[in-house]
Amino acid sequence: MAHPVSPLAPTTYPELPPIAGVRFATAEAGIKYKNRTDVLLATFDEGTTVAGVLTRSLCPSAPVDVCRANLPGGRARALLVNSGNANAFTGFKGRAAVELSAKIVSDALGCPAETIFLASTGVIGEPLPAEKFAAVTAGMAGRLADGPWLDAARAIMTTDTFPKVATATITIDGQPVTICGIAKGSGMIAPDMATMLSFVFTDMPIAAPVLQGLLQPVIDTSFNAITVDSDTSTSDTCLVFATGKAPGVKPVTAAGDARLPAFSQALGAVLRDLALQVVRDGEGATKFVAVHVEGAVNDRSADRIARSIANSPLVKTAIAGEDANWGRVVMAVGKAGEPADRDRLSIAFGPHLVAEQGERAASYDEAATSAYMKGQELEIRVGIGLGTGRATIYTCDLTHGYISINGDYRS
Amino acid sequence: MAHPVSPLAPTTYPELPPIAGVRFATAEAGIKYKNRTDVLLATFDEGTTVAGVLTRSLCPSAPVDVCRANLPGGRARALLVNSGNANAFTGFKGRAAVELSAKIVSDALGCPAETIFLASTGVIGEPLPAEKFAAVTAGMAGRLADGPWLDAARAIMTTDTFPKVATATITIDGQPVTICGIAKGSGMIAPDMATMLSFVFTDMPIAAPVLQGLLQPVIDTSFNAITVDSDTSTSDTCLVFATGKAPGVKPVTAAGDARLPAFSQALGAVLRDLALQVVRDGEGATKFVAVHVEGAVNDRSADRIARSIANSPLVKTAIAGEDANWGRVVMAVGKAGEPADRDRLSIAFGPHLVAEQGERAASYDEAATSAYMKGQELEIRVGIGLGTGRATIYTCDLTHGYISINGDYRS
Repeated sequence: MAHPVSPLAPTTYPELPPIAGVRFATAEAGIKYKNRTDVLLATFDEGTTVAGVLTRSLCPSAPVDVCRANLPGGRARALLVNSGNANAFTGFKGRAAVELSAKIVSDALGCPAETIFLASTGVIGEPLPAEKFAAVTAGMAGRLADGPWLDAARAIMTTDTFPKVATATITIDGQPVTICGIAKGSGMIAPDMATMLSFVFTDMPIAAPVLQGLLQPVIDTSFNAITVDSDTSTSDTCLVFATGKAPGVKPVTAAGDARLPAFSQALGAVLRDLALQVVRDGEGATKFVAVHVEGAVNDRSADRIARSIANSPLVKTAIAGEDANWGRVVMAVGKAGEPADRDRLSIAFGPHLVAEQGERAASYDEAATSAYMKGQELEIRVGIGLGTGRATIYTCDLTHGYISINGDYRS
Repeated sequence: MAHPVSPLAPTTYPELPPIAGVRFATAEAGIKYKNRTDVLLATFDEGTTVAGVLTRSLCPSAPVDVCRANLPGGRARALLVNSGNANAFTGFKGRAAVELSAKIVSDALGCPAETIFLASTGVIGEPLPAEKFAAVTAGMAGRLADGPWLDAARAIMTTDTFPKVATATITIDGQPVTICGIAKGSGMIAPDMATMLSFVFTDMPIAAPVLQGLLQPVIDTSFNAITVDSDTSTSDTCLVFATGKAPGVKPVTAAGDARLPAFSQALGAVLRDLALQVVRDGEGATKFVAVHVEGAVNDRSADRIARSIANSPLVKTAIAGEDANWGRVVMAVGKAGEPADRDRLSIAFGPHLVAEQGERAASYDEAATSAYMKGQELEIRVGIGLGTGRATIYTCDLTHGYISINGDYRS
């Protein structure tokens, strides 16, 4: 089922350079979709380290179990991803499917099972016909290349309407170090310590435990700061592969390394770029919304209030209706269960202050605020007035498009 | 803005008998709506006790503050309710409006302010023009009557598409005791220890503290067991007024009174009837859904899992699409954050077992399950397989109608 491309899609894509030590290929395995690629195989040179963050869902998919088992080893040689079937809630058949998938990859590439990472996305609860990978994996292994990255991003799409890529290049030890990432996701997006699916690749030489230590904080301000529909996937997976092939860069082996902040910042920028693209492709989205909360008793409290606003169906439908409905924002603050004082609240839509001290602002300009709400890029700013806690959550509006994508059919 | 009557509306209404000591009248004050009643005044004879439960929103409306202040006194002589404006997040003007409202009622009836209860429902953040009550209150005081209850229920409607009434009569001390209740609510329904607005009246002689003690447990299995859209109102108010006029019934003055269980059960039945009517009038609802969770580690855990399912936009849109999408139910169990084991889950839609032991049930009959999903009254049964905790939450589907009601306009 094809849906129109999101009006919030990027108009151009950045040029993603190759990452030394990373090659990939895609194929049409016919898992569910017809006439499009649905499998991505990526391979990594010997010495590649890996870190990852996975869904906190208590009903995770079978490939999430595989990643969780293999991550402590810290070594990666291959990644196999399919779209069309999540291999989630598939019981014994699901475990057999991931074992078969790993064997197919191991046979084709000659690498041990514990260095093979798997991810699947698509329908939940249907057995994954992993035998279909056998028919295409040898072919992919024969045409591995270091680009184009957009092909890789397209192969992992489900209800996405555009592929998601991001890149950054920084200088470390006087040498260029590159990070390239891809992601997919459109619905079932309220990542809980991870994202739907995102894979990031770098030539940075960095030990797996150090990379793992970097990852969680940057996830918190990227994928964990977005929500499309408050529904957390069974399959959220974010993996970062580091080949260490950047020439002339001395390996990072300790968390205190002075070169890490620059790398961490660049990694965060790539993840944040990808995360915001996921929101821009939120099912049915027509508006991109940044919800900023400040003045809460602490950051955690601000985060909960911001999520309460960003997940509220009434706030999201009001935004779809281009309605500066601050009453619904008040409601969402009130239901968050966090300290708030009605009579200290201030609320602004972009530059337009609509409420302060618990009532409509004297300066409120309805015409100007209404004009602002017609834009595609909106900000909701809420001042709690109790402390210095702050948080930002990114979301989109809730439209007929979301209902059509998720309700207008029998799967 | 009129919306089509919910397809889940009751086809007949019960006959509600008068309650001795309760009289009421309605009027058109023109707060927001035209050509319909928007004010309800109810009066209670001397000796009427009152108990209530109010929103836990930290941004409550001004009338909620009034009820919270007056409830400890336990005495009620009047109730004034308006629709069209919630008098929430209205700051100093909101407090002035409730003071003026109470004064208008006090002047008309000669009762003290602390026995006057107020409730308002409608738009949040707009000043309430309470002076409009002055023009209609004397008139209402002059035509107080003991019925018809449907008129009272209609005056408090907002986006409701049908009035909500319920009644029960029981025998205590060999005498009939009657309970009549009304409620309103359609959107912003995820009551947190109360409901949108519900008012219940009885001739039972019962001390206020005893009545208050009874109320919370029955709220938990009625209004607190429903959700339309996960959004908790600023104005949730449930008040129970007991006139004590039932002839020949000795007053209940202690919580241990042996006659209380029968009364509590009847009160619970009335509240539950009203709560389920609120779900049946959920904005845009076309299906009524009972989500039953059993086998959780405890009841609280079961409740959280059931709410996670009942509030999931993906589950609710699947139901709208008549799709037995148990993958989305698994997702919602997984994101609830409560103990669950994917490989022990069982899921049924009504009598149709679709999944057990973490995968599709061998007995799964797609045609029969699909036929079941076309019905208006649905059950989702989830077995967690870990303990004996159980809970039921009632909800409705998420349709284009919800988006139209809440997003297709500028308020």
